[in-house]
Amino acid sequence: MKLRVDRAPIHVPGFRFSGVAAGLKDGGRKDVALLVGDEGTTVAGAFTTNRFAAAPVEIARGRVRSGVARAVLVNTKSANAGTGAAGLVAAERCCLEAADRLGISVDEVLPCSTGKIGEPLPLAKMRRGIRAAASALSPDGFWDAAEAIRTTDAFAKASVRRIGRGRRTLTVAGMAKGAGMIHPQMATTLVFLFTDAALPAARLDRLLRAGLSGSFNAISVDGDTSTNDTALLLASGASGVAPRPGSGDEGAIAEAVAEVFSDLAEAIVADGEGARKRVDVVVRGAASHADADRAARAVANSILVKCALGGEDPNWGRIACAVGYAGVRMRADRLAIAIGAVPVAREGAAVGARAVARAHRAMRAAEFAIEIELGVGAHEARILTSDLGVDYVRFNSEYSS
Amino acid sequence: MKLRVDRAPIHVPGFRFSGVAAGLKDGGRKDVALLVGDEGTTVAGAFTTNRFAAAPVEIARGRVRSGVARAVLVNTKSANAGTGAAGLVAAERCCLEAADRLGISVDEVLPCSTGKIGEPLPLAKMRRGIRAAASALSPDGFWDAAEAIRTTDAFAKASVRRIGRGRRTLTVAGMAKGAGMIHPQMATTLVFLFTDAALPAARLDRLLRAGLSGSFNAISVDGDTSTNDTALLLASGASGVAPRPGSGDEGAIAEAVAEVFSDLAEAIVADGEGARKRVDVVVRGAASHADADRAARAVANSILVKCALGGEDPNWGRIACAVGYAGVRMRADRLAIAIGAVPVAREGAAVGARAVARAHRAMRAAEFAIEIELGVGAHEARILTSDLGVDYVRFNSEYSS
Repeated sequence: MKLRVDRAPIHVPGFRFSGVAAGLKDGGRKDVALLVGDEGTTVAGAFTTNRFAAAPVEIARGRVRSGVARAVLVNTKSANAGTGAAGLVAAERCCLEAADRLGISVDEVLPCSTGKIGEPLPLAKMRRGIRAAASALSPDGFWDAAEAIRTTDAFAKASVRRIGRGRRTLTVAGMAKGAGMIHPQMATTLVFLFTDAALPAARLDRLLRAGLSGSFNAISVDGDTSTNDTALLLASGASGVAPRPGSGDEGAIAEAVAEVFSDLAEAIVADGEGARKRVDVVVRGAASHADADRAARAVANSILVKCALGGEDPNWGRIACAVGYAGVRMRADRLAIAIGAVPVAREGAAVGARAVARAHRAMRAAEFAIEIELGVGAHEARILTSDLGVDYVRFNSEYSS
Repeated sequence: MKLRVDRAPIHVPGFRFSGVAAGLKDGGRKDVALLVGDEGTTVAGAFTTNRFAAAPVEIARGRVRSGVARAVLVNTKSANAGTGAAGLVAAERCCLEAADRLGISVDEVLPCSTGKIGEPLPLAKMRRGIRAAASALSPDGFWDAAEAIRTTDAFAKASVRRIGRGRRTLTVAGMAKGAGMIHPQMATTLVFLFTDAALPAARLDRLLRAGLSGSFNAISVDGDTSTNDTALLLASGASGVAPRPGSGDEGAIAEAVAEVFSDLAEAIVADGEGARKRVDVVVRGAASHADADRAARAVANSILVKCALGGEDPNWGRIACAVGYAGVRMRADRLAIAIGAVPVAREGAAVGARAVARAHRAMRAAEFAIEIELGVGAHEARILTSDLGVDYVRFNSEYSS
């Protein structure tokens, strides 16, 4: 499994970052981050669809609508969800503290929290953390911030793309936190992208949604979202480049945004708590994209399929069964399944014992694909998943309340 | 956890049963069952909605439409699913063998298989098994048959109700196989009920569906069905009692059918592979029954909630989060959650640390409830679930292909 341990410096003109230890996490680990853009920074955001959304989500969702923002304030350890009206007040106090320190309006501060649901924000610690984070802001602080937003993540996640443009360079960089993506129901995903291009909020919004649809939406079940999921794309304009709509520059930025999102999504799957395998579920021959997507998700989210992945068991019957209950159009007599590029089922029936043995060997790899042909159309979809192992269950069974 | 070890004899007038070892399972364990009704036996059935249905399901589904049946032929070890046209031929050959031995028409034989997908039926063994089973048929064979239909079940499952009626007694009895009901996607459920009342197929069908809706449907996600799931209700009429529609007798039979279904469904949850806890998820205050049901299923099927149950962790945030992504109407500020009768969240926020400690103690029990109030209506629903423990994952990760 590829870990993103590359820590080359990441700079995005027009942005300063910091990550500090405010004592929310144990052991002096960084736990509060500030991400600050120059005046004129524009923003687009996407938020959880969970009806039990966290207080910071309620606040940030409202503020993003203005299309402008100056600062993102992130804390770990407490999700500030399930905290009622007191949670809203607490989040707003933290935003005020940050705005005060940065000399900006509170309406320009977007709060994000991740951690345990039902735990109140520890206000005194937060206030000290915000002051320290404001003092520590630096163009060099990208990795500090990426570090500070980690929760159960095994490693900090960042990605950057630079776009050459004559003498000038455009930058798109991003950081994310998230793990436990076995079934991403409740592991909060925070993902923040930054560019120095000058783009109005409406166009940023399109780039954000296009980038998400090919990356994070492909590891996340629609509606199965955490209380705190937040994705933000901020543009400082510091490059002085304001690409025209439909221009090559805009296309290059869109591509870079999509790639950074993909990198971060892959890093999150690779970081599944206790997961050892990264498996691409590819469904082809579906009657519609929606059918392909639904079948892929049914397989990717099946507990029994995930257990089989953990045991390196090419149990294609579990895969066929999941496809069968997904409620999609299919021809059972045309169903074909390959695991690790080894065909194990064809025309709805087993290929044979030798194929199973070969697939078993192929499943020893840390990364492989499950390919499924439905035999009724030309649409396809893919979803990333990981195995369900004893370690995952142990990790998520610990008494932490 | 209550195991059904009570093995009091079960007789249903008009029916004979047998269970024999045909060498499909190892170790001389029983693996083929015959369930035979006298002439005039009526039948109703419900089958998997999986699009990748097994060969025996395709055959039995067609035959049940006639409303009459004489024999149910069950085998374990091979699901006869994912076996293509050859699977249909093999199932039909077995039915012919049984019909021949019993002197009935092949159209009166309903085949049911459970076991591994993609494995062909071992025809020679099946033929010997069917002959032995036909020879062994006896009014006393109920438990032998219940034993023979087991797969990974830790114990044979049966239940009986007797309805006093003056000098006469009506009987409703049932047997079932099923385990691994953590998320019952792919663990085949077979359930067979028998009564000596005389009832036409159309009325049996109503009793069957009413009984299923309050029992098996409450442990099974709609559409998330195995390739082989089958429920049958057979009536021999041997009691000579033909209850009129809407009569007290019919009501008593309906109640007995529902109770036997419930007993068997509970036994299956209690038998979850490696599961140690049986948890009733109760959702109240929903805007509709469908909403209540959906919210309960989201909680019952959440991997992270199940992990928390295994760890006896009263992590109500995971429960609130699952309710939040279920896509149902709710008021976050009215959400209330109790675990093991201990309120842990009220008005969408934590009750406090003492409540969490008490709930933690309550979760040590093998059976308890999670109660969730949505605060927007008067509808409720309940779903049985179990914990997800390391043992379950270990069990389902073994390389068995």
